[in-house]
This record gives sequence, structure tokens and C-alpha cells, in this order.
Amino acid sequence: MQTLTVDLGDRSYPIHIGAGLLARGDLIVPHLAQKRVMVVTNTTVAPLYLAQLTATLEGAGVQVASVVLPDGEAYKTWETLNLIFDALLTERAERKTTLIALGGGVIGDMTGFAAACYQRGVPFIQIPTTLLSQVDSSVGGKTGINHPLGKNMIGAFYQPKAVLADTDTLKTLPPRELSAGLAEVIKYGLIWDAEFLGWLEANMEKLRALDPVAIAHAIYRSCEIKAQVVAQDEREGGLRAILNLGHTFGHAIETGMGYGNWLHGEAVAAGMVLAAQTSQRLGWIAEADVARTRTLIRAAGLPDVAPDLGFEKYLEYMGHDKKVEGGKMRFVLLKKLGEAVITGDVPHDVLSGVLARPH
Amino acid sequence: MQTLTVDLGDRSYPIHIGAGLLARGDLIVPHLAQKRVMVVTNTTVAPLYLAQLTATLEGAGVQVASVVLPDGEAYKTWETLNLIFDALLTERAERKTTLIALGGGVIGDMTGFAAACYQRGVPFIQIPTTLLSQVDSSVGGKTGINHPLGKNMIGAFYQPKAVLADTDTLKTLPPRELSAGLAEVIKYGLIWDAEFLGWLEANMEKLRALDPVAIAHAIYRSCEIKAQVVAQDEREGGLRAILNLGHTFGHAIETGMGYGNWLHGEAVAAGMVLAAQTSQRLGWIAEADVARTRTLIRAAGLPDVAPDLGFEKYLEYMGHDKKVEGGKMRFVLLKKLGEAVITGDVPHDVLSGVLARPH
Ligand SMILES: NC(=O)c1ccc[n+]([C@@H]2O[C@H](COP(=O)([O-])OP(=O)(O)OC[C@H]3O[C@@H](n4cnc5c(N)ncnc54)[C@H](O)[C@@H]3O)[C@@H](O)[C@H]2O)c1
Ligand SMILES: NC(=O)c1ccc[n+]([C@@H]2O[C@H](COP(=O)([O-])OP(=O)(O)OC[C@H]3O[C@@H](n4cnc5c(N)ncnc54)[C@H](O)[C@@H]3O)[C@@H](O)[C@H]2O)c1
Ligand SMILES: [Zn+2]
Ligand SMILES: [Zn+2]
Repeated sequence: MQTLTVDLGDRSYPIHIGAGLLARGDLIVPHLAQKRVMVVTNTTVAPLYLAQLTATLEGAGVQVASVVLPDGEAYKTWETLNLIFDALLTERAERKTTLIALGGGVIGDMTGFAAACYQRGVPFIQIPTTLLSQVDSSVGGKTGINHPLGKNMIGAFYQPKAVLADTDTLKTLPPRELSAGLAEVIKYGLIWDAEFLGWLEANMEKLRALDPVAIAHAIYRSCEIKAQVVAQDEREGGLRAILNLGHTFGHAIETGMGYGNWLHGEAVAAGMVLAAQTSQRLGWIAEADVARTRTLIRAAGLPDVAPDLGFEKYLEYMGHDKKVEGGKMRFVLLKKLGEAVITGDVPHDVLSGVLARPH
Repeated sequence: MQTLTVDLGDRSYPIHIGAGLLARGDLIVPHLAQKRVMVVTNTTVAPLYLAQLTATLEGAGVQVASVVLPDGEAYKTWETLNLIFDALLTERAERKTTLIALGGGVIGDMTGFAAACYQRGVPFIQIPTTLLSQVDSSVGGKTGINHPLGKNMIGAFYQPKAVLADTDTLKTLPPRELSAGLAEVIKYGLIWDAEFLGWLEANMEKLRALDPVAIAHAIYRSCEIKAQVVAQDEREGGLRAILNLGHTFGHAIETGMGYGNWLHGEAVAAGMVLAAQTSQRLGWIAEADVARTRTLIRAAGLPDVAPDLGFEKYLEYMGHDKKVEGGKMRFVLLKKLGEAVITGDVPHDVLSGVLARPH
């Protein structure tokens, strides 16, 4: 097991990464203000891991209640969140009762938001069970739900007491979801760390085979990079935006193809190729860099060609993005492989060259 | 106009108190990150004050949108909160758009919570228009909504950028609501400041007649006391509980009489009498102190006799209170007039003497 500490003063917390962590009550109990928890999970994850986690906790003398939500992004709504509040109030959960999120990013976001709001804040612990949530939701304190008029529009910044990323749970994850998580891992290499990018190129096969040492390293380094970026910009004003490499394009792809048809990670992967192509047309990176990026993305089982939505549609869907400020569109691009920049200055013909007929 | 600064480091904010503040764009504009606001109000307050506030803001070059919610505690729900989110998203409000709460505590709590959650936090300004919200919601950062299984169970700690308590708005407030606010004002005297208590005894008639100097002083000193208490205990662990003088009993009264039949302030007033009687039976305050308390409460137009719910019912309804910790009931009582204490040690026969047949 490896442990990374996210340094946030008195809200600092550990991220434990490794195999067999669901059996490790000793990683959870020290963080409980009261030996009482409410585990929040969903109908897919509960049959796989809820009994094991419950046994671990009960074995450590912890009183365990649980609530099993329907599975899917479509349920990341107030109605579902209310099922958590119903359970907490029915169980008469107190201010010291800890919420535990057991599931992917949807469960993590909703549980964290419920913890932020229940009695104006109760402790929570994350046990992310998808690669995407292990490398992305573990750091940054973002929690929330969707609104019919916008994704993640309602939420809070709220930090967990601890995160347990059990790499064993990835064995049951559908391969397409694993690849979607790898898109975010590749993103960290592209924006921050050329050496890590090289390591990913050398180890992609091991990662897809869930080699325990390789996957733990990828998660560790991803969380570490995200923590470094977020530490410099906790509430989102500047630098943190580089974490959105491929995401503005990606959101356009997700919207254009109909939410859920492309996984988020797939859209981000294709979006990162668009960002690389834009960067190359601006003269910042070479053709060969774009090619390397695409090869790695394909090796991860991800699409490296964005769908042809039409240039106008791309612009329209990108304009809907939260990252538009004062009407001006801002782009996260690559100055070189391993270094991102944020810019508002992308000439129209460069954009149209990339987006008019993606290839 | 008087101004009190609530000192919270980089989240410090001013409370402006006085007549004619709805005309003072200069008190609002400096706090806007963007000259765009969304005013949240209700069907009772909108016809009284929305046009005036809008004119003031537009006169200062601010773009004003508004949303008018149904009026009443029964609407302090997620469904109503969602009307604010709908309006924000329909207007494409950005992270720098400021929410302005124009109304009583219900509007203040919901608007503050909406501001805490919209895009994980946007600025907000409070314009409380009831005495209760001016003296109580202005300080402490509590925001939230009710859940069918419990009042104020879902919310956030979230501070406003500024508070404007315009004493002119109190002229349209029903007298019963004014008295309800006075209950909280009396509470500050009882728990913290015997001199202020004496001043209230001398000025109660002026306060009920809305004498502008007297009412502004009462609001100022109330906010100041609350700020002192909260400063020592921002997130509620110890001292802050003294602000609940009369509230545990009061909640039992509100529940026992059916929510809404007794106003919160009325129940708190009668609850403070029960607290005084309990304190007297414990030998802490004299009969004469209880009598003074009751006389002041009656002078404020408030009930000084709690309803006879039956001893068992009182215990049951008090047990439902949030302030129960680890199963043990804690009471806020008076060591003397002007000084509160928190205790868990109230003998059963003392309690039954006070609650079995309130008088
Ligand atoms: N808070 C943050 O910083 C942050 C970061 C990235 C994404 N997110 C959010 O996370 C969500 C996406 O996360 P996700 O990709 O984990 O989606 P997800 O939570 O929907 O999980 C994907 C699917 O895998 C299933 N699953 C989870 N763990 C499994 C396991 N071990 N074995 C088998 N199946 C399993 C889930 O039930 C679901 O069907 C989005 O809502 C996004 O907004 C949040
Ligand atoms: N956040 C806090 O710290 C805090 C503190 C105390 C109470 N509260 C909450 O505040 C609520 C009670 O506040 P309240 O007593 O202001 O109730 P309220 O908001 O329901 O207002 C009482 C009534 O007066 C009306 N009204 C408001 N201003 C008026 C005016 N100027 N003229 C005429 N009518 C007017 C309202 O529309 C309502 O009908 C409760 O929900 C309580 O939980 C919050
Ligand atoms: Zn992403
Ligand atoms: Zn009160």
C-alpha cells in the first residue's frame, strides 16, 4: 500500500492506494468521530463489495447502516440525494456519523454533497471503485449533483477525511470504464509530467491488465499531480483550469453525441487529440507529438478521432461550457508534451481547421 | 446608519443598520464582483419592496433579475430552492453573479443555501426584512432548508458579503411578527448582557412603536452579541449553544402545538420562561428574576405561559432536538440574568416541576 497526503492544513487527508484495502478497518476507524457510519452505494456495486466492507467495519466494532441508490449519471439528481437524507434522518444519524461513499464518481459526488449538507456538514470517507474516480474524485473536494439545465451545477467544495483506493475493485470494472479512467491518467502526463507520459507509454499494457504495481503507481502519480495543481488554486480561479485539458472539446462531444453514448473519458480522450492538434497548428508542439499522443490514447483503448459534429455545432456546444468567462472562450492547450497553457487567443481559422472535419 | 463589522478574517462583512437603506446602492455595489444580481424574494415582500430595490440597483448600473417564491415556512423545501436554481440557470448566471435575499428568515436561509451550492458557491447579500431575521440570520452563516423529517436539516455554513437591515421595512411587518423578533432580542439580554436587558425594559414601548433610534440600537446590540458568541465557536461545538436559550423547550412547544400555530419567537419566549423557572428551581436565579423576565416578555407582546402539553410529551418532543448529544439531553439555563450556562444535570423532579403543569 502507498499513501499520499493531500496537504490542506487542518483539512489534510490521506489517500491510501493498493490491493485488499476493503479488508483494512484500521485505515477507516481512526477517522471516525463516532463508531457509526452510513455507507452509500448503488445497485451495481452493493452486490460486489458492500458485504465485505460491512464485515470489515463491523469487525472493528463500527455500527453500519447503508443506503443503495439506483446506478447511473441520470440519477445524480436531487431526488436521489434525498434518498440519502431520508436514510440519515430515519436512522437518526448525528453530526458525528460518518458517510462512506462506496462506488464510482457518481456515488462519490452525491455522498460528498450529502455530507456537506446534512446538518450543515458531517464527516465523510471516499472509497472510489472506478479508475476514473480514484484518479480524479480523490483530490479537489468537488462534490455535487446535476440540474436538468446543467451538469454539476449544484454542489459544494468539501474534503473527505480519508480516501481508500482499493485496486482490487477494478477487477470487476467493465474494460470500457477502465479505459475511460486511463484518459484522465494520460491527461496528467500531458499537462504536467513528460516523464510520467513516457512511463505510461511503456506500461500501458500492464495497466490494462491491472498489474497491481503498475496500476497503483499510475493512481498515485495521478493523484499527486492533481493535488499539486489544486494546492495552488483550491477554489478554481487560474491554474486549476489546466485539469480541463480536452474537456471543453470533450463536453461538446458528449453533448453532440447525446449524453451517455460516449463515456466522459472517451470524449476527453478525443478532446485531448483536438487540443493537441490545435497546439500543433499554433506552432507549439510538433506533428510527432500529436502522433505520440494519439498512439498512447489508442493503446489505452480510447478513441483518437473526434466525431464530425460540424464546426458550428462544436462552437455552440463549447460556448455552453462553464469555463466561458465574460463571454470569452478560453482553451487549455499544450505548450509542449508535459506542459499545459491556458489561452483565449486561438484564431478562428486554426479552430476551424481542427474542428471542421476532425481526423 | 450604524455599521457593525462581523470579523471573520478574509470573510469579514459589514452589517448596515438604519432607515432608508433600500435606496442606498452605494452600500451594495462595492460588494458586487460583477454588475449583475439575482434578487430572491417572495409573494408578500415583492409587492412591498422589490420595485424600490430594483430601481436603486438599476440606478447604479446593475443588471437585475429576480425570482419570486411562494411565502411561508412550508415552502422552505428543496422544491422551492430549485426555483432559484432554475432562474439562475435560465438567466445563465455566472460564478460572479450575486444573489440578494430580500425577505425574512425563510428567504434568507434559502437564498444563502442556493448561493452556497450554485456552481459550488457564488456571492450573496442579505437584506432581511423581519426583525427576527435582522437580529438572528444576519450573523452566524447558517443557511438551509427543511426536510420532511426535520427542520433545517440540510444546509451549509456560508457567509454573506454584506447585510443591510433597513428598519423602514419593519413598518409593514405584522405586529405579531415584530414581537416574535423581540423574543430573540430579549434572549441576547438574558444570556449575555444584563445592562442591555435593563435597556430593553426601559425601551420596550419605543421598540414596539418602531422608534428608529431605539430599534436600530436593539438590532445593533443583538447582532453584536451574536457575533461575539459565534466568533468564539464558528462551527458549533460549545459556547454557541447558549444562543439556544428557550429553544429546546420552544421546539417542543412548536411541535406540540402543531408547527405554525405558535410563531417560533412566541414559543421561544414561553421556552425562556421555562428555562428561567428551571434555573430558579436549581437555585441559580431568584423568584424576582423570573418575574422580571416574564414582565419583559409580556411587555413585548409575547406569551409568558407555556402550553400544557403534559410532561411526557415535553420530554418526547425535546428528545427529538438536534442538541441531544450521545443520547444525553443538554439544557441552556441562566446562572444569573445576563449569563447563560449549558448543563446536562437537571434532576428529573426539577424538570417535572416546571413542565408538568406550566404556569
Ligand atoms: N468530484 C470530482 O472531482 C469528479 C472528478 C471526475 C468525475 N466526477 C464525476 O464522476 C462521475 C463519473 O465517475 P465514474 O466514471 O466513476 O462513473 P460512475 O460512478 O457512473 O461509474 C461507472 C459505472 O461503473 C460502475 N462501477 C463502479 N465501480 C465498479 C466496480 N468496481 N465494478 C464494476 N462496476 C463498477 C458504476 O456503478 C457505473 O455503472 C461523473 O458524474 C462526474 O461528474 C467527479
Ligand atoms: N440563518 C439563521 O441564523 C436563522 C436564524 C433564525 C431563524 N432562521 C430561520 O428563519 C425563519 C424565520 O424567519 P422569519 O421569522 O423572518 O420568518 P419569515 O421569513 O417566514 O417571515 C415572516 C412573515 O413575514 C413576511 N414578511 C417579511 N418581511 C416583511 C415585511 N417587511 N413586511 C411585511 N411582511 C413581511 C414574510 O413573507 C412571512 O410571511 C425560519 O425558517 C428559521 O429557521 C434562520
Ligand atoms: Zn474529466
Ligand atoms: Zn430562534
